[in-house]
Amino acid sequence: MTVRTGSYPASTNVRGAPYPRINPDGSITFLINAPGASRVQVQPGGMDNGLGAEPRDLVRDAEGVWTGTIPPGVPGFHYYWFVVDGLVVNDPGSETFFGYNRQTSGVELPEDPKVAAYYQPQDVPHGDVRIRWYWANTTKTWRRALVYTPPGYDTDVDRRYAVLYLQHGGGEDERGWTTQGRMSFIMDNAIAAGRAVPMIVVMECNYAYEPGQSAPPPVVSTVRSRPPRLSQTVSRLIVDDLIPMVDGSFRTLTDRAQRAMAGLSMGSCVALQTALHNLDLFDTIGVFSGPPLGDEDDIGLVAAAGGPMDDTEAFNARLRLLWFGAGTGEPREWGITQRRRAELDRAGIRYTYWETPDVSHEWLTWRRCLNEFVTLLFH
Amino acid sequence: MTVRTGSYPASTNVRGAPYPRINPDGSITFLINAPGASRVQVQPGGMDNGLGAEPRDLVRDAEGVWTGTIPPGVPGFHYYWFVVDGLVVNDPGSETFFGYNRQTSGVELPEDPKVAAYYQPQDVPHGDVRIRWYWANTTKTWRRALVYTPPGYDTDVDRRYAVLYLQHGGGEDERGWTTQGRMSFIMDNAIAAGRAVPMIVVMECNYAYEPGQSAPPPVVSTVRSRPPRLSQTVSRLIVDDLIPMVDGSFRTLTDRAQRAMAGLSMGSCVALQTALHNLDLFDTIGVFSGPPLGDEDDIGLVAAAGGPMDDTEAFNARLRLLWFGAGTGEPREWGITQRRRAELDRAGIRYTYWETPDVSHEWLTWRRCLNEFVTLLFH
Repeated sequence: MTVRTGSYPASTNVRGAPYPRINPDGSITFLINAPGASRVQVQPGGMDNGLGAEPRDLVRDAEGVWTGTIPPGVPGFHYYWFVVDGLVVNDPGSETFFGYNRQTSGVELPEDPKVAAYYQPQDVPHGDVRIRWYWANTTKTWRRALVYTPPGYDTDVDRRYAVLYLQHGGGEDERGWTTQGRMSFIMDNAIAAGRAVPMIVVMECNYAYEPGQSAPPPVVSTVRSRPPRLSQTVSRLIVDDLIPMVDGSFRTLTDRAQRAMAGLSMGSCVALQTALHNLDLFDTIGVFSGPPLGDEDDIGLVAAAGGPMDDTEAFNARLRLLWFGAGTGEPREWGITQRRRAELDRAGIRYTYWETPDVSHEWLTWRRCLNEFVTLLFH
Repeated sequence: MTVRTGSYPASTNVRGAPYPRINPDGSITFLINAPGASRVQVQPGGMDNGLGAEPRDLVRDAEGVWTGTIPPGVPGFHYYWFVVDGLVVNDPGSETFFGYNRQTSGVELPEDPKVAAYYQPQDVPHGDVRIRWYWANTTKTWRRALVYTPPGYDTDVDRRYAVLYLQHGGGEDERGWTTQGRMSFIMDNAIAAGRAVPMIVVMECNYAYEPGQSAPPPVVSTVRSRPPRLSQTVSRLIVDDLIPMVDGSFRTLTDRAQRAMAGLSMGSCVALQTALHNLDLFDTIGVFSGPPLGDEDDIGLVAAAGGPMDDTEAFNARLRLLWFGAGTGEPREWGITQRRRAELDRAGIRYTYWETPDVSHEWLTWRRCLNEFVTLLFH
């Protein structure tokens, strides 16, 4: 195996791991040492994740080291794993990232540094992401929230801040926005540039179960597996436990004009089902790459809202911002968003639509959505 | 596969994963679906980690699901992985934990809840663990520190706090103390009980490289692999970059009497090599399960200190606390600690020794060490 000139280890690797390796042409070389295996493939974490649509066979050398190079893909963060004689195996060279209801491998394919600057650490003041455990009465369990406090939070001790509640996607968890999404760097940079006001960002898990119930067993599949169904319990948790904890622990502004909720993919369903039915708590909703709220073939936003949207005029007056973002490269959710726009137009509901070119149902889309959405908040 | 009555999923599992499963007798049942495999073993992450000394074969059922039960082990957190036809594979049912220079599986075997209460979340005020990125001039890289701020930090805004620098073990990283070690719960509970004063705890990574250098490639082995060698660069990083960042960002007390350093295993070498040569910065050192500073057969603490210990009387007067802790079940480091005590006794160096029964070179030992050590700090 010759190492290509100018190639370098992916930023998502564990320390010292030479593979996966980014080549100057944007292709990625994978490697796993599996002398006993008969067939090894690298499997992209979805049909549309920028590493191609299909698994790719790696090639064995005389010592049993398997390698393969994927042609230049779409930049950004991509889930992947190996399939070794049918078994799903993480790459020991990769950090792990919670997605698909388990820890998987992931690789960051760099963008042009100028374009990528907004989600990279820069020489600007940095906020903290705090790991905060709290007792949730709704589930009768200890739960973990991640809370971004902006630069200045520790020194401007009389200042209070607006709060964005930010939900992850299906199969992921509260860590997604910080690790895969680079939320803290996006916020730091947007705040430093004056594009966003300093705010608190709260990330918790979409999955919440009544006492005595538990999550369904995760399906470990060689291909993308469906996330567990969303329940209403998470909305009760957010309203009854999470918001009171945040408002009781952090210097928040508690008026509804200072509280927004957004989510990506399944997280947008949590944002909609929670915020639309609690307009006394929220005046802004962000939907990033939103799937249908109900059945696959039913957009059903207006109907699903079941009440708040019936009086169009009152609803438009009450919700300051209903924001939809999508990537034009998304095979499913971009189209769903267009159907949703038509539905909202018919109903006379005011909203804002934003799209970003070429990117698919992936974290690069959601980094871009967040970077745009936060500029619109709390002015 | 019959599920045993009274068995339950390990707390270290990903949500919904039924295996690994803790049985009422303290045995652990593992399961992996690998229809194509010829041999599957569960491999404890070391010779002495409480799951037994040897890998154990799992048994295949007609559908290709492999299961096996390990006899009751030592309670606490244990690294493990599967070996599938010679390939090291993580358990998709387990969270991942950074150890052995890669992400591995881990299982928490519960202790008696009364004994374990000190490292469980309790209904007491909780501090935060903050993820803080900072630029390190020593390495010319962005690095991640985890910083525990105690309960009250956000409200007692004029109060300043002493700081404990706390290092992980070989092959691990800055996340170890929070995830495997449950540091924040230990601190919360000790502070709530008045056993420890409220303090800041800083956790960073033992591995640091000069600009242009990088970590050696991790060795992925079916058995425990050796961690990379420790360098002096990490001590320069701590003194020149980390401490200034912490003292510049958090409300710290900056006198040496208000700064301590401790570490487990390899981390104790970092604590010793850093603090002994920077006694103007530290007056307390904690060594948890310390290996030799130099060669395997050379304890060499006094000699390695090379200077600060030469004037015994001055050294004893200058260092307030030199603390050694070990588990009596440790096959190597308990004995090393006894030899070290003899060496220090011969040299007339004052120190405190503490041991805890039965536990091995594992996180339960270090949870207990931390819980004891922090009661001695900053009085």
